[in-house]
Amino acid sequence: MEIPSAYLQEAVNQFASLPGVGRKTALRLALFLLKQSNDEVKQFGQAFLNLKEHVQFCKQCHNISDEPLCSICNNPKRDQEQICIVEDLKDILAIESTQQFTGTYHVLGGNISPLDGIGPTDLNIESLLERVSTGGIKEIILALSTTMEGDTTNFYLYKKLSSFDVKVTTLARGVAIGDELEYIDEVTLGRSLVNRLPYESSLKH
Amino acid sequence: MEIPSAYLQEAVNQFASLPGVGRKTALRLALFLLKQSNDEVKQFGQAFLNLKEHVQFCKQCHNISDEPLCSICNNPKRDQEQICIVEDLKDILAIESTQQFTGTYHVLGGNISPLDGIGPTDLNIESLLERVSTGGIKEIILALSTTMEGDTTNFYLYKKLSSFDVKVTTLARGVAIGDELEYIDEVTLGRSLVNRLPYESSLKH
Repeated sequence: MEIPSAYLQEAVNQFASLPGVGRKTALRLALFLLKQSNDEVKQFGQAFLNLKEHVQFCKQCHNISDEPLCSICNNPKRDQEQICIVEDLKDILAIESTQQFTGTYHVLGGNISPLDGIGPTDLNIESLLERVSTGGIKEIILALSTTMEGDTTNFYLYKKLSSFDVKVTTLARGVAIGDELEYIDEVTLGRSLVNRLPYESSLKH
Repeated sequence: MEIPSAYLQEAVNQFASLPGVGRKTALRLALFLLKQSNDEVKQFGQAFLNLKEHVQFCKQCHNISDEPLCSICNNPKRDQEQICIVEDLKDILAIESTQQFTGTYHVLGGNISPLDGIGPTDLNIESLLERVSTGGIKEIILALSTTMEGDTTNFYLYKKLSSFDVKVTTLARGVAIGDELEYIDEVTLGRSLVNRLPYESSLKH
């Protein structure tokens, strides 16, 4: 049987268009909203109208921001000589939560992925090279996913950056804290053996 | 670290207010929307503004509808002498999908649940009794959940309806089709033994 209201059907369709939301969940969510007060539902819908209308992207690092320059780029305490390359905001939040990084970021907006039709020109790479070419940058930290696409993008950036006088580093690969050795894939375990560290370094944190 | 945009934060908060959506999922959904076109996001937000503004409830059965009378109550082919009592629209959709019921419905809007502060007056029970008291109703089918709350509500309705000349029935309880005997709870299995059926009835469908 079809849903007996075109408006409810439309709300269900919209929820179902979100990633990971099926039609049964979408109906459950729409019926939940229908039970809420008028004001609450109005706020709900309005939040998404405002989102697209008012959110900006930092003109330096392309992070999401309410100002032309984001709060990290605008912070005089952050080291402007270090740029950490990330895919999107979620990665910035993850790195910020470690409290181990005091530099700035550059949000690529994705990875190079020919299968998905995403090439270098679809990402914020040109503006990164501009940032580096103006000078004053000492280190670029590649912090992309350790997937095929992430590795491709890392290599592309490494090649592009090699003409500049900057140090290019990447996140350490190795055994995650809490991991049991028997369950680690052999590539990670192999690399962590090759790149083994002096024991004293593990006592630092 | 906080989300660097108040508008994005608000969108995340709104998603996270939905049942079963955590803050990480909410952020993922909001970032997904941010990547969509202006028109798509506008449609998304607008769908929920329209939902609450335009959706009506059928004045006879309280089902969701775009008209004062829903498409089932308004259908001359449906048997107006049978009323199936359900909790909400999801249950109507489930029963309609069986194609075994040709009567009408009455949507209670929930179950009696003192722990959640839901009493009989919070449900569409008064209007059900009115429907029955006007006459012409021959059978009431109780199709509520087989939970403590559903059973309580069933019993309450049964008592209230006993003063009218209507047959009150309930959905058959028993072994679900596809179930393996060893995994069935003993109450269901016991009842299905007590209420055993002539073998021929299982050949009908």
